[in-house]
Formats: sequence, C-alpha cells, structure tokens
Amino acid sequence: MAHDIGHFFYIGGNDSMDTAHKVHLLAQQKGYELQVIGVPKTIDNDLAMTDHCPGYGSAARFVATAIRGSGWDTMAMGESSPIKLMEIMGRNAGWLTAATALAREIPEDPPQLIYVPERGVSLEKFVDDVRYWYRRLGYCVIAVSEGLRNERGQWMGEASGRVEVDAFGHARKAGAVEFLERLVRESLGVKTRHDKPGYLQRSFTALVSPVDREEAYEVGRAAVRAAVAGETDKMVTLVRQAGPDYVVAMGLAPLAEVANHEHLLPPEYLNEEGNGVTEALLDYVRPLIGGPLPPYGRLAKHAVEKHVRPWPG
Amino acid sequence: MAHDIGHFFYIGGNDSMDTAHKVHLLAQQKGYELQVIGVPKTIDNDLAMTDHCPGYGSAARFVATAIRGSGWDTMAMGESSPIKLMEIMGRNAGWLTAATALAREIPEDPPQLIYVPERGVSLEKFVDDVRYWYRRLGYCVIAVSEGLRNERGQWMGEASGRVEVDAFGHARKAGAVEFLERLVRESLGVKTRHDKPGYLQRSFTALVSPVDREEAYEVGRAAVRAAVAGETDKMVTLVRQAGPDYVVAMGLAPLAEVANHEHLLPPEYLNEEGNGVTEALLDYVRPLIGGPLPPYGRLAKHAVEKHVRPWPG
Repeated sequence: MAHDIGHFFYIGGNDSMDTAHKVHLLAQQKGYELQVIGVPKTIDNDLAMTDHCPGYGSAARFVATAIRGSGWDTMAMGESSPIKLMEIMGRNAGWLTAATALAREIPEDPPQLIYVPERGVSLEKFVDDVRYWYRRLGYCVIAVSEGLRNERGQWMGEASGRVEVDAFGHARKAGAVEFLERLVRESLGVKTRHDKPGYLQRSFTALVSPVDREEAYEVGRAAVRAAVAGETDKMVTLVRQAGPDYVVAMGLAPLAEVANHEHLLPPEYLNEEGNGVTEALLDYVRPLIGGPLPPYGRLAKHAVEKHVRPWPG
Repeated sequence: MAHDIGHFFYIGGNDSMDTAHKVHLLAQQKGYELQVIGVPKTIDNDLAMTDHCPGYGSAARFVATAIRGSGWDTMAMGESSPIKLMEIMGRNAGWLTAATALAREIPEDPPQLIYVPERGVSLEKFVDDVRYWYRRLGYCVIAVSEGLRNERGQWMGEASGRVEVDAFGHARKAGAVEFLERLVRESLGVKTRHDKPGYLQRSFTALVSPVDREEAYEVGRAAVRAAVAGETDKMVTLVRQAGPDYVVAMGLAPLAEVANHEHLLPPEYLNEEGNGVTEALLDYVRPLIGGPLPPYGRLAKHAVEKHVRPWPG
C-alpha cells in the first residue's frame, strides 16, 4: 500500500514461481488488488506447463560448443590422456546435460556417453560403458549431470559413503565428477581428466542463442500485456506449435500448477540403456540453440595474413 | 636409419624444445644427418626468444570472454553471491591470467584483481584487496593463476600446510582457488564462488583468434622452409616489428637457448601492488586476440522474430 504497487512480475524458476503464487494468495487474503505474473527463466529448463524456459537455449548452445572442443582435445591427446568427463549443471533435471548431444556430427563423436539424474546408473555399468568406448575408439568423452544418481537413487557424490576433507579440515560431500573421475582412473588404469564449466554455463554471453534471446524479450512483453489485460496468478508459457517449422506462441498457465513442480526429462528422450539421448530429444532442443554450432575458426574468416611476414624475410 | 628420416619437426612448449635439442645432439653424435626444427605452440606463452607463442592469443581471447560474462553474472547477483574467483591455467607463468584484463571496458570492470605466479601475495594482502573492492562496488571478481604463490614463494595450494582428503581417502594438495575461496568466505563472511574453466581454455575452438590461427600456420610453413634451407637445431620464432601497426616476422633461434628456459611476465607488465597489470601488458596482448571481444548477443543479429507469436495470439 505504501508504494502503491499494482503489478508484480517475478522472473525465475520453480522457487520464484512458488513465491509469486504466495504473494498472490497473500494479496487476495488481505483484499489488496495486485496483478501477479510470473516470467519463466532458468537454464535448468525444468518449469512445468511451458515447452521450454528462456536461458536454456543459450546454455545448451554453450555446453554443446564446450564439449565439442574439449572432446576434440581429448581425441587429439590420444593415449596420453584418453578419458574426459564434463560436469554439467542440473541437480534433478538433465535437460542441459542432454543438450551436449548436439555437439555430435556422427554418432561416434564426443560425447559418447551422457548420464542424467532422471536415470540412475550403477558404478559397474558406468565403468563398463566407458571401457567399451575406450576400447573401440581409444578415447571416451562423458557428459555427467552434477546431480547424477546411482541405480538406488543415491546421489553419486555421497553414494559411496565417502567424504572429502577440505584444506581447512572441514568435511564436505565429494563432487559427482571428481568421484567418477577417480573411479574410472582406478578401474581402467588410464589417465582421466574432467572439466567443470560452472558459472560459464549461464553467463557466456558470446554464445547467446538468437532464438532464446528473442523469446526472453517476448515473455517479458507478454507478461506486461497479460497484467494490463487483468490477468493474475499466472505464468507466461512458451507453446510450441505443430508443423515442420519451429514456431512458438505465448500462453498463460496458473501459477499454482507451475509452482514447485519439476519438469524432468521424459523417458522418450532417453535411450534404453540410460547412457544417451534419443532423436526426439535432439529434435526438441535443436531449434532452441538458434542455428548450427559455431564452426571451428569461424572468426578466422577475416583477412589477417597481411600482418605476417613469412620466413625467410 | 630404418625409416630414412631426414627432417624432424617438433611442435610444443619448453619440454618439447628440450627434446628436439636432445634429438639433434644425438643425431650429431651418431653422425646421422638430420634437420631438427622446433615449432612453438603453448597457451602458457612461456617460450624464450619469441615474442609470443601460437595458442596463446586464442586462449587469451577465451579467458577474457569467459571472465567478462562470469563477472557480469556476479555483478547482477549482487549481495546474494558477491565474490567470484576464476582459476586460469599457468603454473609458473601468468601470461594467460594477465590477459583477463582485456575483459574490461572501464578500470572498475571485472576482473578487479589479477594475481600471477611471478608475484607472490600474502593472505592478508589478498583478503584486504578483495575487501576493498567489495566495499567499493558491492562485488569483486578475481583472476588467479593456478600456480599462485604467497609472499614467501610457496604455492598457495600447500602454503597453509593444509591437505585435502579425497572421496577415496587419498591425501591431495588443495587447489589454489578452492583454498582462496574458503579464505575469502571465512574472512569476509560473504558467499564466495569460483570458476575453473580447465581444458576449455585450450580447446574452445569457437573463439579462435584469427591472428593466432594465421600465425600458427605460418610458423609451420617457416619450419619447413628452414629445414629445406639446411637449418637445424633451431626453433621458429615470432618477431614483432616496430611501428604503430601490429606486424610480425618469422625468425629462428637456437634450440639450446630456448630449451628449458621459462619466459615469465616481466616486471613492467605488472602493477606495483602486485594485484593487476599495466597498460604495457594490454598493448602487448591486444593484437594477439584478433579484434575486440564478441559483443553481448552478437549472434542475435539474425532476424528471428518471425518464429515468435506474441501474446495475446
């Protein structure tokens, strides 16, 4: 009342939508007139009622580009360091990890293996999978969700009952990728390395997906229009249209149906073995990254030879 | 003899040049006619006798782009997570870490602090520096070389005498960035996070510097020409020419003078306080990254609006 606020827009993921819904309920309870509209945004892509979430397409573009380069590096290193794991953000939802499959041009390209929280994997199966590809290609690149679980649903970082002690003497849970790296090294007896792109996944602005960027603006516009039209307690949704071309319409969903539901990868997007994704997943995610991945040396098209004087001068 | 090899080209850094020199000495000793030419390539940029090394310009372009995005993310997060450290490759040489300064448009931009192995820093000074920027801007982004040392020249990871115990019960040295992250968190009492781009620094092909790429080809051409011209026991060098424009010529240096020398950052490239770089460093590295950093949303120039149907439909 003090600030005469009539509209409340909340941009974010599950927790934010839950908060927005609670703000609506509180205003209603107090008889305070307030338009509450949620605006979806999370690289986890785990909001219900929407085809996808702004932020996801750009993060997907980044992780696919990153693992392609790191995968080529691993391929080139050969026997001296043949196994590479990359830990991708996602504690419960594997959407972003699944998107690393876009890095492939042929099925044997890296990443050869993809593991997501929706499907647990036993340590034995995991090691067997890595061994298979290592024997077949001489190297193996593996994308792992930070929230990967074992076959009993326990998080990898604590599944073994093992605890790390940090430099200050404090115990902490072992990270999933550090645990698996060590496991592969000890099981296969070969040099194993990992990448953990961390916050780069959500902040690498040089690789923003143009489709994602446009949709991020559009959900904001739709939120304002919805509020002005008298809507409240709703979240803007992206509604993919049927047809051969990628077209998305703006919709609205009740915040109560969005709040605190996690939209996880459906079974049809994961292969039977639980170590990869299906064509259906690729068809889903491909339009979101806004065109093909940047080719090697894309920026090298400029004529720059004039600055180099060949030998002998 | 068995394979009738007359030319030996070795692409790499310090160790590779040392090996190439030894191969030359061995061939000489055995009276075997062999042209040995070293070809420089290391993102560490620490080879002697050459202005810089192929690989460095592209890695520099990547780390500057990465810390700019992660820095904006930290700025945007504000009080909820105001301190970010990024660990950059380089055990003894801080060339790559120093290049993160290219991310700045104004002096207050991230990274506000840069620490390299060539200059040790005490834990007290480090915490004071971070506190200064945190109080001034409300956040702080710090670039740290993996090989950072304290004021007594001890590597940060072991300077405290502290040891980590991993999930398998094995002791290991604490990483520099994990140690400093914890130190800042406990000293300032604020949420502190880190990024460790790891192998992405040397493999992110989407951000290859066109200047670097051209020079990488040219040192290869020069190596073949030098061998054909009868040269041996030499490494190809890049010789920056005097003048307002960036021009580089190909040269040759004796492998014996290159092998096992580390070319570290000279004092005039580091500020007096030991927590940043000078304009001279920026002038040195700017031409190598091949043009300005990719602007935010550069790929978003395509017209993609047609795929979006605004609300209400």
